[in-house]
Amino acid sequence: MSEPLRIALAGLGTVGAGVIRLIEANADLIARRAGREIRIVAVSARNRGKDRGVDLSAYAWEDDMVILGEREDVDVVVELVGGADGPALALARTTFEAGKALVTANKAMVAHHGLELAAKAEAAKCAFKFEAAVAGGIPVIKGLKEGAAANAIERVYGILNGTCNYILSTMEDTGRDFADVLAEAQARGYAEADPTFDIDGIDAAHKLAILSSIAFGTAIDFASVRATGIRRVLAADIAQADALGYYIRLIGMAEPETDASGSRRLFQRIHPHLVHRDHPLAHVDGATNAVVAEGNFVGRLLFQGAGAGDGPTASAVVADLIDIARGDVGAPFSIPVGELDTAPAADSGHRTGKAYIRFSVADRPGVLAEITAAMRDAGVSIESLIQKGRAEAGSDEPVLVAMVTHEGPESAIAHALELLEGSESLAEPPLVMPLIGE
Amino acid sequence: MSEPLRIALAGLGTVGAGVIRLIEANADLIARRAGREIRIVAVSARNRGKDRGVDLSAYAWEDDMVILGEREDVDVVVELVGGADGPALALARTTFEAGKALVTANKAMVAHHGLELAAKAEAAKCAFKFEAAVAGGIPVIKGLKEGAAANAIERVYGILNGTCNYILSTMEDTGRDFADVLAEAQARGYAEADPTFDIDGIDAAHKLAILSSIAFGTAIDFASVRATGIRRVLAADIAQADALGYYIRLIGMAEPETDASGSRRLFQRIHPHLVHRDHPLAHVDGATNAVVAEGNFVGRLLFQGAGAGDGPTASAVVADLIDIARGDVGAPFSIPVGELDTAPAADSGHRTGKAYIRFSVADRPGVLAEITAAMRDAGVSIESLIQKGRAEAGSDEPVLVAMVTHEGPESAIAHALELLEGSESLAEPPLVMPLIGE
Repeated sequence: MSEPLRIALAGLGTVGAGVIRLIEANADLIARRAGREIRIVAVSARNRGKDRGVDLSAYAWEDDMVILGEREDVDVVVELVGGADGPALALARTTFEAGKALVTANKAMVAHHGLELAAKAEAAKCAFKFEAAVAGGIPVIKGLKEGAAANAIERVYGILNGTCNYILSTMEDTGRDFADVLAEAQARGYAEADPTFDIDGIDAAHKLAILSSIAFGTAIDFASVRATGIRRVLAADIAQADALGYYIRLIGMAEPETDASGSRRLFQRIHPHLVHRDHPLAHVDGATNAVVAEGNFVGRLLFQGAGAGDGPTASAVVADLIDIARGDVGAPFSIPVGELDTAPAADSGHRTGKAYIRFSVADRPGVLAEITAAMRDAGVSIESLIQKGRAEAGSDEPVLVAMVTHEGPESAIAHALELLEGSESLAEPPLVMPLIGE
Repeated sequence: MSEPLRIALAGLGTVGAGVIRLIEANADLIARRAGREIRIVAVSARNRGKDRGVDLSAYAWEDDMVILGEREDVDVVVELVGGADGPALALARTTFEAGKALVTANKAMVAHHGLELAAKAEAAKCAFKFEAAVAGGIPVIKGLKEGAAANAIERVYGILNGTCNYILSTMEDTGRDFADVLAEAQARGYAEADPTFDIDGIDAAHKLAILSSIAFGTAIDFASVRATGIRRVLAADIAQADALGYYIRLIGMAEPETDASGSRRLFQRIHPHLVHRDHPLAHVDGATNAVVAEGNFVGRLLFQGAGAGDGPTASAVVADLIDIARGDVGAPFSIPVGELDTAPAADSGHRTGKAYIRFSVADRPGVLAEITAAMRDAGVSIESLIQKGRAEAGSDEPVLVAMVTHEGPESAIAHALELLEGSESLAEPPLVMPLIGE
């Protein structure tokens, strides 16, 4: 058996402690599969004294985590600190400058600085791996880079945020409202005290930007991801979707398009969608993640599993380490950074499909006529229309009106909503959610 | 860019032609991802003159496919001939003896001769890859060998035969009987003229034996897979399962167990199961395949996609070629053949769970009492019992009696059926199907 692969671990939160537990618990089988021992030699975290339930006494300690990247007794640095910039980024740069490999679970850093870091890694002929940054324990980066490598990927989409999926599927199961379920999720530790990154779709956007770069061979472009989260989804929307045979899921969707001038553009969006009950994503419940990739020969591939948590994330981190131990120093984004295409952001207006539109309207005569006239004038064809929850006489409560459109361009819907903008009939801006069929 | 990877293709059926089409259609992106061109240089098949819809004029032709393994201008042989022995096996041996890599979609050959061939490949330091042999286009071998490599895999199971799944899900959708749906599937080309390998579970058993070797690090042991197919599943069973909230699927299940003496044993079985509607495998319809792997850190991973067809199978073959082009010469079964454990077959009687049992009985007084007494005497606890389709007075038609047991050992059910063996009340042997919960 070869020399051990020597690891330094930066960050000892739940995932860091999970990586230590995994490497200890599965040491024998990891050595058999990797052909060599994977050995932690040094660690660093903010607070040395904190009890993490793992014994750190065998490992060297560095107060300054950036030093880990310079230690001569280290082959690979595992970065589990988080944050797009700051110490994590400093450590990543130092690691490649010192000619060592880096494994990270840091989706924000990869989404913002992945190209710079990949260029550094390639120049140093070092591995740079981040399977744990997307969809937790699911080997979806490997699935795209290697498993589906023979295909032109036509579309990649999925459920990329476990917190949102937990909230939506709990709303679905219980009929409760968003705010109520979010509060409970926070109390139980399923959602952060500041849940913005999760529920506004930023976390999913980081992951989607990474996936689409690998799937389409385009330079990572986080800034172009349009992200809308799940704050505005109502229990009534979920009930309405259910009656139509759909489940509401926060979907990250990326797809290359060709614009009128023949140029390649990239569409990337995080948005709640209505997913048909016969589509495999409809049955992804709780904190589970799932990613669909559609290839020009393989057709539809689905990868599903735990999207977060110390065990699943540690599984992905150590899978990367095993790949490195086996000698894999492939291009971080599948093809070398210098050969990645740049594709400007696509305009969502070019997209066509069915959509669910929910209005919150004043309960008075003529409102429906006003809405349907705007739809007609914008060329939106309505497949079904449901007026829900007529308020009691004299009440000021707005009434919900939901509709499903026929297949048509998203630009027509946007135009209809422009026509309705400023209308006194609307209590708030309408919520539009695209439909995903079987 | 490096030198091209030079390929010889043995077998030009639908998959062989698919590989040619894929390599032509996606040549540029394959070269970008692999870092070098993948170039077909020679081909062989039984009939040179046959029109396959692809132009073979650029490739050298060999009448004797075994010669492909000896050609000096070839780096990798792709074997798509099929058959556990015969020319495919001769070609595989010749290829490794000549120090070349082999990629194959031949599940029968890998199930029967995989260890011998892997030992030859390892001795020659050549790649031996067979992603296409299991679950068509789904990168599940890669998922287990690499994606889940950090985990002790506790169980691997799934839907491994598209023909059976097509038949079962069509029976489900239409209420028609097995023989009727099979005949239609044959007419449409979804089932072979001789469907035995598919519907009796042999094809799935080949795939399961390969998966369990990789998942558990055990020497491949096809002979120990107990295979029962779907011939005996009735439309009435499917209706009954549906009423209970389950779907019937042909499941391949492999799981290491520890016997009374502390030895590791391996359970491998192909059998129809009742799958709870909240389990992701319940919604796998048509010719789709899906595999679940449960790891001790990652939890449940699901891989789903097209299990057969020229495009998906070609996708898996070319993914293997891209791995080889990138320099991957890992152990074919994840750890070297000499280090694989041998685990004797586990006795299914040690397993516990709920089960569905369907009896076909004479319609006369006392039959139910006889069955329930046997269950009681064997210690089988009945959760629910349904007597279906009482025949008309005077009819000789048997009546179906179905039951679901409480959680209990499979050995108790086997004992109960032994007690009933030879009973004149039973028109045919009962059909037992284990339940898989959420």
